[in-house]
Amino acid sequence: MRVSLKDVAEHAGVSIKTVSNVVNNHPHVTPAMRSRVQRTIDELGYRPNLAARHLRKGRTGIIALAVPELGNPYFAELAGAVIDAAAEHDVTVLLDHTQGDREQEILVSQGFRERVIDGLILSPLELEAEDLGGRDGDVPLVLLGEREYDLPYDHIAIDNVAAARTAVRHLLGRGRTRIVYLGARTDSANRPAHLRLDGWRAELTAAGLPAPDELVGETTGWDRDDGAYAMARILDSGVRPDAVFAYNDLVAIGAMRVLHERGLRVPWDVAVVGFDDIAEGRFGAVTLTTISPDKPAIARLAVRSLLHRLERPEERTGRRLTPEYRLIERESTLGRR
Amino acid sequence: MRVSLKDVAEHAGVSIKTVSNVVNNHPHVTPAMRSRVQRTIDELGYRPNLAARHLRKGRTGIIALAVPELGNPYFAELAGAVIDAAAEHDVTVLLDHTQGDREQEILVSQGFRERVIDGLILSPLELEAEDLGGRDGDVPLVLLGEREYDLPYDHIAIDNVAAARTAVRHLLGRGRTRIVYLGARTDSANRPAHLRLDGWRAELTAAGLPAPDELVGETTGWDRDDGAYAMARILDSGVRPDAVFAYNDLVAIGAMRVLHERGLRVPWDVAVVGFDDIAEGRFGAVTLTTISPDKPAIARLAVRSLLHRLERPEERTGRRLTPEYRLIERESTLGRR
Repeated sequence: MRVSLKDVAEHAGVSIKTVSNVVNNHPHVTPAMRSRVQRTIDELGYRPNLAARHLRKGRTGIIALAVPELGNPYFAELAGAVIDAAAEHDVTVLLDHTQGDREQEILVSQGFRERVIDGLILSPLELEAEDLGGRDGDVPLVLLGEREYDLPYDHIAIDNVAAARTAVRHLLGRGRTRIVYLGARTDSANRPAHLRLDGWRAELTAAGLPAPDELVGETTGWDRDDGAYAMARILDSGVRPDAVFAYNDLVAIGAMRVLHERGLRVPWDVAVVGFDDIAEGRFGAVTLTTISPDKPAIARLAVRSLLHRLERPEERTGRRLTPEYRLIERESTLGRR
Repeated sequence: MRVSLKDVAEHAGVSIKTVSNVVNNHPHVTPAMRSRVQRTIDELGYRPNLAARHLRKGRTGIIALAVPELGNPYFAELAGAVIDAAAEHDVTVLLDHTQGDREQEILVSQGFRERVIDGLILSPLELEAEDLGGRDGDVPLVLLGEREYDLPYDHIAIDNVAAARTAVRHLLGRGRTRIVYLGARTDSANRPAHLRLDGWRAELTAAGLPAPDELVGETTGWDRDDGAYAMARILDSGVRPDAVFAYNDLVAIGAMRVLHERGLRVPWDVAVVGFDDIAEGRFGAVTLTTISPDKPAIARLAVRSLLHRLERPEERTGRRLTPEYRLIERESTLGRR
């Protein structure tokens, strides 16, 4: 059973108020009383109620993190990193998923649970700048992910164009020249896929190679089955790629399944690079080469930015913070060692 | 910009209170006024603030779901199902992960954020019955998962022993007789692994086969690398299994990677069955046969049980609800078709 303030008070033979004063470093406590209560706290292993301590600062000690899809391991892993980063500041994280739906993202960003949370970290997919312009709540907001907004909120994302170029450069370095980009979403002009698509195109162009539309595989989502479907369509169209750069690891994993079914060997016939470095890519018959964004850094920067805003609500300039990424080379481009 | 109660009031030329009365079906509104306000609501596309409606019932409209690990796709998928099930009742879900740590589970179960949530759905790993016995909060609690507690809380879990027997029976039906159980955790007597381990043993015994300890692979966790490590250790010990029944899909996926590295073909040399039916198992070079718990049913029962408790706080008997499961046969036992 959890030790309460009352248990400590009874055990030390003092009032609950006195124990509370000691826990909260209230000045009107004698050193003798402080050490007597502290001894009991240590003996019983009492842990002060953090929620109450936040409340004294007019806060709940709770921040919200809204991601598009928890079924996507990248977001599940990122959420774990944010929970860990927040715990270092004694802050609890409440997770929400928006399913990448604009309405849901608006609802979340407008702070419909303002009474509950001190701030919000939002990773939007479909949200438009105008949706945030109308935001009238006082709840601080930090944005994550590839969507770029010209708005006074801190925005944390790796350099997606540069990362995509790194991935394509790696494939070029392995002698590949017919490199498919898998996971373009053309239903919106501002989608993150286009930054990575831009990087793919820029790197091919820099290498003096064409980047024709027939090498671009469109998808309606970024899950495994989207990757499988797009890969099958490209192969069925008669295109014979020697490499695939996928929008994310899930799309890459779907593509690898289809390559396997068609008897094409990864990496010998077709090399594959993903994006996200989800745990799943480290297993399977062929481990996946991928761009690994520094998730702990993203999480740490997001939490710190939010807490900074809480301390300085008057600041209204949006900072652009750019965590590191690296290429992790595995069997899908190097083969089995 | 989101339409507010105030916008509707200004547009309809009535007071905010009147709009509120209409939205909340207050009896003292004339039919004429009601239709005038409703017309403006429809025109502007105003959506009433659900949080406010819950508040009138003395609730926040928020329930918490605490799972051990969001990095485990089973829990991420289950969380998505709970969010969907709750949305049908206009309830928002706040997700928490406890990392399967007893202290964290106690903290969550003791309702440290009572002011925020109406109720809690908790999937514990290490929590002991005595930890819940000391619970003094009024926040209703529903338990998920394999741990059995003799306590007055509703508990929702599939029949793990029967499900494990189904998995083993399938392997026996494929002619396998040296079936390893992978993922026993022996650091606690009550761990869920033991229900599935019991099922494995019972089914082998019923078939007149031995179930020696050398066929039991112990792990310290239930992730992919735990499965890989345990599988390698069993093979290194000289045991030559013709099948593996794994505690969950992640353990099975780790085991399959090691079988692949050792040149053992799944299913021809070693057939593999997992548990959970995570999306990952539907892809890869060899798709995974698995026990698929009915996650939407688990989620629906959990939310309904919690809301039932909210309506009838005086009820103090714990019900045991047992959702369905089924065996999904894939390549890891059937081979490629």
